[in-house]
Amino acid sequence: MMNFASDYTEGCHPKILDALLRTNLEQTTGYGTDQYTESAKSRIRKVIGKEEAEIFFLTGGTQTNQTVIDSMLKMYEGVVAVETGHVNVHEAGAIEFTGHKVLALPAHEGKMDAGELDKYAAGFYADSDHEHMVFPGMVYISHPTEFGTLYTKDELKAISDVCKKWELPLFLDGARLGYGLMSKDTDVSIGDIAELTDVFYIGGTKVGALCGEAVVFPKGDAPKHFVTMIKEHGALLAKGRLNGVQFDTLFTDDLYFEISKNAIERADELKKVFAERNYSFFMDSPTNQQFIVMKNEMLSKLDEAGVIYSNWEPADEAHTVVRFCTSWATTAEQIAELARLLDELQSGSL
Amino acid sequence: MMNFASDYTEGCHPKILDALLRTNLEQTTGYGTDQYTESAKSRIRKVIGKEEAEIFFLTGGTQTNQTVIDSMLKMYEGVVAVETGHVNVHEAGAIEFTGHKVLALPAHEGKMDAGELDKYAAGFYADSDHEHMVFPGMVYISHPTEFGTLYTKDELKAISDVCKKWELPLFLDGARLGYGLMSKDTDVSIGDIAELTDVFYIGGTKVGALCGEAVVFPKGDAPKHFVTMIKEHGALLAKGRLNGVQFDTLFTDDLYFEISKNAIERADELKKVFAERNYSFFMDSPTNQQFIVMKNEMLSKLDEAGVIYSNWEPADEAHTVVRFCTSWATTAEQIAELARLLDELQSGSL
Amino acid sequence: MMNFASDYTEGCHPKILDALLRTNLEQTTGYGTDQYTESAKSRIRKVIGKEEAEIFFLTGGTQTNQTVIDSMLKMYEGVVAVETGHVNVHEAGAIEFTGHKVLALPAHEGKMDAGELDKYAAGFYADSDHEHMVFPGMVYISHPTEFGTLYTKDELKAISDVCKKWELPLFLDGARLGYGLMSKDTDVSIGDIAELTDVFYIGGTKVGALCGEAVVFPKGDAPKHFVTMIKEHGALLAKGRLNGVQFDTLFTDDLYFEISKNAIERADELKKVFAERNYSFFMDSPTNQQFIVMKNEMLSKLDEAGVIYSNWEPADEAHTVVRFCTSWATTAEQIAELARLLDELQSGSL
Amino acid sequence: MMNFASDYTEGCHPKILDALLRTNLEQTTGYGTDQYTESAKSRIRKVIGKEEAEIFFLTGGTQTNQTVIDSMLKMYEGVVAVETGHVNVHEAGAIEFTGHKVLALPAHEGKMDAGELDKYAAGFYADSDHEHMVFPGMVYISHPTEFGTLYTKDELKAISDVCKKWELPLFLDGARLGYGLMSKDTDVSIGDIAELTDVFYIGGTKVGALCGEAVVFPKGDAPKHFVTMIKEHGALLAKGRLNGVQFDTLFTDDLYFEISKNAIERADELKKVFAERNYSFFMDSPTNQQFIVMKNEMLSKLDEAGVIYSNWEPADEAHTVVRFCTSWATTAEQIAELARLLDELQSGSL
Repeated sequence: MMNFASDYTEGCHPKILDALLRTNLEQTTGYGTDQYTESAKSRIRKVIGKEEAEIFFLTGGTQTNQTVIDSMLKMYEGVVAVETGHVNVHEAGAIEFTGHKVLALPAHEGKMDAGELDKYAAGFYADSDHEHMVFPGMVYISHPTEFGTLYTKDELKAISDVCKKWELPLFLDGARLGYGLMSKDTDVSIGDIAELTDVFYIGGTKVGALCGEAVVFPKGDAPKHFVTMIKEHGALLAKGRLNGVQFDTLFTDDLYFEISKNAIERADELKKVFAERNYSFFMDSPTNQQFIVMKNEMLSKLDEAGVIYSNWEPADEAHTVVRFCTSWATTAEQIAELARLLDELQSGSL
Repeated sequence: MMNFASDYTEGCHPKILDALLRTNLEQTTGYGTDQYTESAKSRIRKVIGKEEAEIFFLTGGTQTNQTVIDSMLKMYEGVVAVETGHVNVHEAGAIEFTGHKVLALPAHEGKMDAGELDKYAAGFYADSDHEHMVFPGMVYISHPTEFGTLYTKDELKAISDVCKKWELPLFLDGARLGYGLMSKDTDVSIGDIAELTDVFYIGGTKVGALCGEAVVFPKGDAPKHFVTMIKEHGALLAKGRLNGVQFDTLFTDDLYFEISKNAIERADELKKVFAERNYSFFMDSPTNQQFIVMKNEMLSKLDEAGVIYSNWEPADEAHTVVRFCTSWATTAEQIAELARLLDELQSGSL
Repeated sequence: MMNFASDYTEGCHPKILDALLRTNLEQTTGYGTDQYTESAKSRIRKVIGKEEAEIFFLTGGTQTNQTVIDSMLKMYEGVVAVETGHVNVHEAGAIEFTGHKVLALPAHEGKMDAGELDKYAAGFYADSDHEHMVFPGMVYISHPTEFGTLYTKDELKAISDVCKKWELPLFLDGARLGYGLMSKDTDVSIGDIAELTDVFYIGGTKVGALCGEAVVFPKGDAPKHFVTMIKEHGALLAKGRLNGVQFDTLFTDDLYFEISKNAIERADELKKVFAERNYSFFMDSPTNQQFIVMKNEMLSKLDEAGVIYSNWEPADEAHTVVRFCTSWATTAEQIAELARLLDELQSGSL
Repeated sequence: MMNFASDYTEGCHPKILDALLRTNLEQTTGYGTDQYTESAKSRIRKVIGKEEAEIFFLTGGTQTNQTVIDSMLKMYEGVVAVETGHVNVHEAGAIEFTGHKVLALPAHEGKMDAGELDKYAAGFYADSDHEHMVFPGMVYISHPTEFGTLYTKDELKAISDVCKKWELPLFLDGARLGYGLMSKDTDVSIGDIAELTDVFYIGGTKVGALCGEAVVFPKGDAPKHFVTMIKEHGALLAKGRLNGVQFDTLFTDDLYFEISKNAIERADELKKVFAERNYSFFMDSPTNQQFIVMKNEMLSKLDEAGVIYSNWEPADEAHTVVRFCTSWATTAEQIAELARLLDELQSGSL
């Protein structure tokens, strides 16, 4: 079995298990008040260059998006996102469940356009009937996006400027942040993100942790009683140390960045494997998610051979867009093995 | 002042005030258990030809949409509507407030296409990831639509068939139902609507009542404890007779239909007034809402002259789409007066 | 039939119907932007002596409580009320529906004790675990209470002081405010209420209107975008004039107070009728709701005779607490007739 | 430092870390579809003796209570619990957050009385006004309770019978289930619980896991699309294996029961330590939570000595009720050390 379906197919980076083992029998206080959580926060503050940042650890991506968005919006506000944004499509309505509309803008390879955002906000306030509509209350973007694409620093700055203009807090979903930061095609650093957003999260689940996302308010202005709201959303771990120890490890000796780099290097190899065999890409992704347009016939063969990937969407009657992911755990051997298999399948020897 | 901004600029049809006056000092029980409410229900059942129908009176359109949709959906379901649907745009997020996503399909002059609905539902269930998405739980259409357009009986039947295929209850928003039924360009009767939908409402507020909408479950299968849910949504009137007396009057001697017919006749005159003066229509509406593309310059003059209309949306830099409504209360004199005024403004004599 | 079940058994005061008739064909703008609504607000501001007050008209009591409370609370807050408070018992969970807990204190003949409120708040903040609990976010009291009882000015001031101490806005539910203000046993004026609360409402539905409650923020600090939140709760009338005209009439020439006075005078007669016949009162009410402990046997006879009252709660196996209400519409003849009937029933002649 | 504050002060049982390590680099599918999750379910089904049971793994107690209760209730229903129930007090309003009232009954050492439940339900349906009230929709009990007390099998059966009578599903919160099952003073087996409840959960977080609770529908009648509702509540782990591996381990070779037994044995020693020194107990608890009434003066000394416990509530001016917990991880040495310390403090030598 070769599983390229996602970047959460393994457990966690071995150093995390080591740390859990090493600290296991120490007694700590609960709910994120322990020393490992404190240490993890401290390390993250250093990495982003913001001593004043407030940081909270939650357990998964949908939970984090739901809790952050619901806690920051007023009752009459919605969150602006692109059509393909995770909050708009793949969270089972978790945002609406908390009473808020997702106000969808067009997606451009998964990205929001600053100009369109500005136009939307201007149009909203120009509409004489806007008191009967959902107010835009914050902006949600993901980086990397759901298609693996990345904002440039200029694009991010443009969105940030529009957000400031309309007094909309900017929230960056970094479920795969590490892979974005270590891409060879990015000029965006984690410091830039801390500078340009009002809140973002550093994804753990998809970048080497068993679970866990670090929510960062870089300006230190988290909503009042945010811990109570985390609890109210069912998102407060009793053993907060589980997240604390994991992020403390990930942000020791640049582990988070190092393991992200592995995913990027493997993704480059993966791209080459497909490109050399003349497969076409659905879009050009500079990160660890690669979207390939494949013949359905070929997919059946891959299925038989035990290769696992994600179905994304039908391309046409005979083709499907599929996703292949690399991760912190992917090895060069796995990529080479995939290449061999593709050759065999193409040559009909399998 | 001439106010064509909406169909709720006056109080109510005089016969309603007569009835309120006549019954005023009678003592009745509360919360819709009075005899006038009973009588109104009985009359509506007769008109739609469904003795088994269950009927409830609510107070306004947004409230009705919110209460009906929230009461019929399961927690993990959303309501399918077109992009321009009232529930998707102009209800301040009242649907999301109750935890449900509005799943938006393209609008065709305000209407939903049965084929697109079918394709959407098929796509949803074909998506291997659909357990992580919002399930379609019911379908919302408005008739007349927000643009005054109407479904044909065939179109309505096609949507109803798709709904049955996917087990989606069909909800028809009839805020302006009377105007739709009395249009000269419709083959849809109120009996057809009772036959083809699972729930619909007969609008009172915009068709001659002070307030009030009659929610009809034609098959008699209202959600269990619907009255408690109405109360929970803050939508149960203590003096239920207020709605009861009004609908009892509207459905006596075909008053509802007669006064709707007046709006249609005036709208025809209004169309002629604009057409003869070479104004262009944003779309062709067979009901009481007319959308005209006018020069901003001309609109300024109308403003000065005290003519009130609704701004709909900018057409281009120099033009705006505006809405002129007629209603049960509009008189031929008012239309003639508007025609005179337009001539004067065009000739520059004003 | 003699119906003493509630104070909403008739339509409305005739002067209101006159006003609706007189203004019926005038064209106004919608959603509470009309001149009658403005005039009503202006009259209320004068009566309460607060030029800066912001006023909004909603349609019913549960809706008003739900909208006001939900709009003022933060997500992690609940509303403090007594166990017997309307919001805690008889609103089908309308407060919890919007996500907020009712934090219940003991009731003393329907009233909250300022000392107990203080102790509760102190205990909450002293609890080291309070970040895992629902924060008190505002205080709800009703005046008159659900048992017809009234706060004295000193009691009201004490609660107001405790609220200020803990920064809890004080909300007074005045569904029957008129009857409280006109009681012979009160030292509380509407000006006192405007001074001592942060928000209150003047009930129309139970005091002579067809529907309608006037929400008053005496300090002019209504929540931002309150109209949008009213809309979001499904509580915004398109024909806002319906409430505007009604309150404009009620606050012209002291009509609201005059008709409330009638209810009090009739209630005094009613009390005398029961007291002279040695019925026992469940508690002493100085307003229009009277709670009598009656033999079940006697109640059956009253039922047969067509007298309608409200069942409140079982007293013991043989007795029930029942409520008799007077209202703006109750006549001295009706009370006399009830007295005659009681005598006949007691003498066995019926 | 000696920390008796709770049963979640350590990481997890070492065998769980072993299993995480052993399985770490295996690739599995996500969201609870992996083989370890399957194996864990299978083992639990065997232990409870219900092959038809449906089982789901969530991450924490509040999250589990919120998701289960919200998914099982209809919109107009609340959950019946005792006043001291965790859902009523210590979950930051997580139940109300999802729109449902907690209907509170009196607590008897943390337990619900079947007779009172029956009386409440009977009273509710007897109330002629109950359509305006929150319907009881399910019953929530905890076992052990928040005070460490346990239901007897007869008590549990009585509650279960009343639930059946009124068609109320019975939900048992087993956050500390293991400690209840291994108590020396119980006649309730896990099979009994599977027989007598409609849904219950087996707590992991407080019984040796890093996180995780196993929700069991013993009759196999979980709500339709429960996984989607878990996702919607932000409670679905991408790496579902984290919970799967943990419960697979806990239910291998009776580990869950064995480690629970340790907590009980240590608690017995702890009780003896306090009893022999004439401390008084707030109530008699047969499980791992012990509530002692201690002088505030003594507590200050314990604080200085680095002993950690939980403050429960003030007893009187000079005394406080505090909680000491044992767990799967507590050692006999720790108890002996506490005894020594108490003696030193009492003798004044410290």
